[in-house]
Amino acid sequence: MDRIAVIGLGKAGLPIASVIADSGISVTGVDIDEERCRMINEGKNPIPEETGLGELVVKHGGKNLVAVPDYNEAKNCNVFIIIVPLFIDEYNQPDFRILLDATVKVGKILKKGDVVVLETTVPPMTTETLIREALEKESKLKPGEYYLANSPERIMTGYSISRLREFPKIIGGIDKESGKKAFEIYRKFVPNLQLVSSARLAEFVKVIEGCYRDVNVALANELLKIAEEIDVDIYEAIRTANHEYCHIHLPSTGVGGHCIPVYPWFLIKEMEKRKKFDKAKLLRTARELNDEMLEYWVDKIIKECTKLNKPLKDIKICVKGITFREGVKELYHSRNLEIVRRLMSKGLNVFVQDQMFTKEEIEQMGLKWYNGDEDIVFDPFNLNITAR
Amino acid sequence: MDRIAVIGLGKAGLPIASVIADSGISVTGVDIDEERCRMINEGKNPIPEETGLGELVVKHGGKNLVAVPDYNEAKNCNVFIIIVPLFIDEYNQPDFRILLDATVKVGKILKKGDVVVLETTVPPMTTETLIREALEKESKLKPGEYYLANSPERIMTGYSISRLREFPKIIGGIDKESGKKAFEIYRKFVPNLQLVSSARLAEFVKVIEGCYRDVNVALANELLKIAEEIDVDIYEAIRTANHEYCHIHLPSTGVGGHCIPVYPWFLIKEMEKRKKFDKAKLLRTARELNDEMLEYWVDKIIKECTKLNKPLKDIKICVKGITFREGVKELYHSRNLEIVRRLMSKGLNVFVQDQMFTKEEIEQMGLKWYNGDEDIVFDPFNLNITAR
Repeated sequence: MDRIAVIGLGKAGLPIASVIADSGISVTGVDIDEERCRMINEGKNPIPEETGLGELVVKHGGKNLVAVPDYNEAKNCNVFIIIVPLFIDEYNQPDFRILLDATVKVGKILKKGDVVVLETTVPPMTTETLIREALEKESKLKPGEYYLANSPERIMTGYSISRLREFPKIIGGIDKESGKKAFEIYRKFVPNLQLVSSARLAEFVKVIEGCYRDVNVALANELLKIAEEIDVDIYEAIRTANHEYCHIHLPSTGVGGHCIPVYPWFLIKEMEKRKKFDKAKLLRTARELNDEMLEYWVDKIIKECTKLNKPLKDIKICVKGITFREGVKELYHSRNLEIVRRLMSKGLNVFVQDQMFTKEEIEQMGLKWYNGDEDIVFDPFNLNITAR
Repeated sequence: MDRIAVIGLGKAGLPIASVIADSGISVTGVDIDEERCRMINEGKNPIPEETGLGELVVKHGGKNLVAVPDYNEAKNCNVFIIIVPLFIDEYNQPDFRILLDATVKVGKILKKGDVVVLETTVPPMTTETLIREALEKESKLKPGEYYLANSPERIMTGYSISRLREFPKIIGGIDKESGKKAFEIYRKFVPNLQLVSSARLAEFVKVIEGCYRDVNVALANELLKIAEEIDVDIYEAIRTANHEYCHIHLPSTGVGGHCIPVYPWFLIKEMEKRKKFDKAKLLRTARELNDEMLEYWVDKIIKECTKLNKPLKDIKICVKGITFREGVKELYHSRNLEIVRRLMSKGLNVFVQDQMFTKEEIEQMGLKWYNGDEDIVFDPFNLNITAR
């Protein structure tokens, strides 16, 4: 019987750990956050916005799913699923420190015949190079003595449990045996699982899904600007254009969160490293275009302010929603929060309204809680600007 | 009872004229090509690759659908559907000459209460400016005395009849009355018809559908290059990436035909005219990227040739398929034909194989008919290069 360790109990790790536990397999979850471990073991769900997760944590927390801060407590496991965050730095280069640290610690407890599966979305080739080298260096195991695969998480916060249970999931090994072995284990808890030709292909697939979304959001944002120039309603146009063969996305304040604004850089930077700048020019243009939406919206809000015929500093602006996506308590690369900060840096009087945060949390970020008498209200999720 | 004139009996015009005739309405088709008119009146279908068209032409040609070269023979009609081609010139500017000529001739026979619908895909605002002005100048009618709308053709050669009968079609007027009036007429022969807020919106919708495809083909082509760099199978990757929320297209030799390579320029040039270059930068990057695929494939074929260890001039290359799309006898903006010409201009010995053309037609184009002993075969529809 397999004993599975899930390394990382964050927004992606806890749902998969819970789903595995629910399938009857014993899971040891490793997370450096001791308070988080304690909560989970007491059956308390630290991600309340995740539908269906609460029940699973109540049912399995501290029982079939035991959360521990120490890797040594997972040393009896024979399968290690690594699902920790990967950020990019200020130069848009992937910062592997958290991932490497977790991999090294897994390497230290890895035994002959064990299986390691990386779920973190990474630049293609990371599993077969960086991860493999770190594991082999620490474990002293040779290729063939353990198995290594990549199965990129394809969840979406709020829908993670149904995604794991219904959505197609892919897995690929760094060699044939690794792929087969990891596939056999995963299909015990992932019903819709597909074995692909390699770990590298699995990595690439996840990254290009993000690129598809980034480029298509950029297209929607470019069409928004053009529609505004020629005075047509972009929403009616997109609604009418979309059919079986046309999937134009919706315009936005840009793209936030841990995923879509990050993944295109994996490919752009890899091409840069090879001095093949031209091979990622569409991805780069889309990325820049989405990031430039900040200026677009800041300018638009200020333009709206000037219509009020009051000194700018006397105008109260309310931004309704600062998370990167509606309904998810997450601020990473939040474009809406950045719009708030840019407006503030221009000396404007900005208030924030967000159902995901308490007044105290908003104020701890150095922001002002809305008080209901704002002159201009900007709803970044619906892209509405209204003057009161 | 309406009498409908369809101006232009080409790949787009003849299918709609036939569908209208088949709905029981009397149609006068106007086309400057006398030979084509004669064929149609004799029940002969000039577009054999169009599924289902043959039967309709046999049934209605010369009866409920009468083709004439002279606009005067359509003067008893009360509805005029203009569906003539619009090309772009060498500077990627729309060339309105054919469309304006047709519009002027319609204007000369236009009467009070008549309805004009433009089906040709045009830059947004063309119907309410260029078309309207030409019609009013020639007819001496004032706004309100006639009705003018836009209903962009959404057909695809080979599937035009089923598109007209099943696919959603949109229509919008230059004013409210025009929209309503045109909608009432069109719904007699278009089952899935939607009235939109304006002619401008209808024009814009058609153009952005093309932009969606161009940008997404460009993305697929960029991903092809990246996949090649990092040695993953782009086809497996795309197949695996695509699901409910991901629609990555297939890579290609670029984009050909009358539609997709043309429409993005309508918006790019409009933004240029307004000195807002930045507002169409994604569209421009995508357009350039697709056009640059020519060089990519020419380089790749030549690289394959050098592996054969023969003088380049002694190598025989066969290009299988020169039309812009498989199964459509159309060379406009054909990337495959352009690849043939570029390889020839490099002094290479290029042969052509194409089921849509006879040996004589191929030779009339100054190309060589394949003779079956080529060293390198390039299949541009499947992007295969094989050495024999």
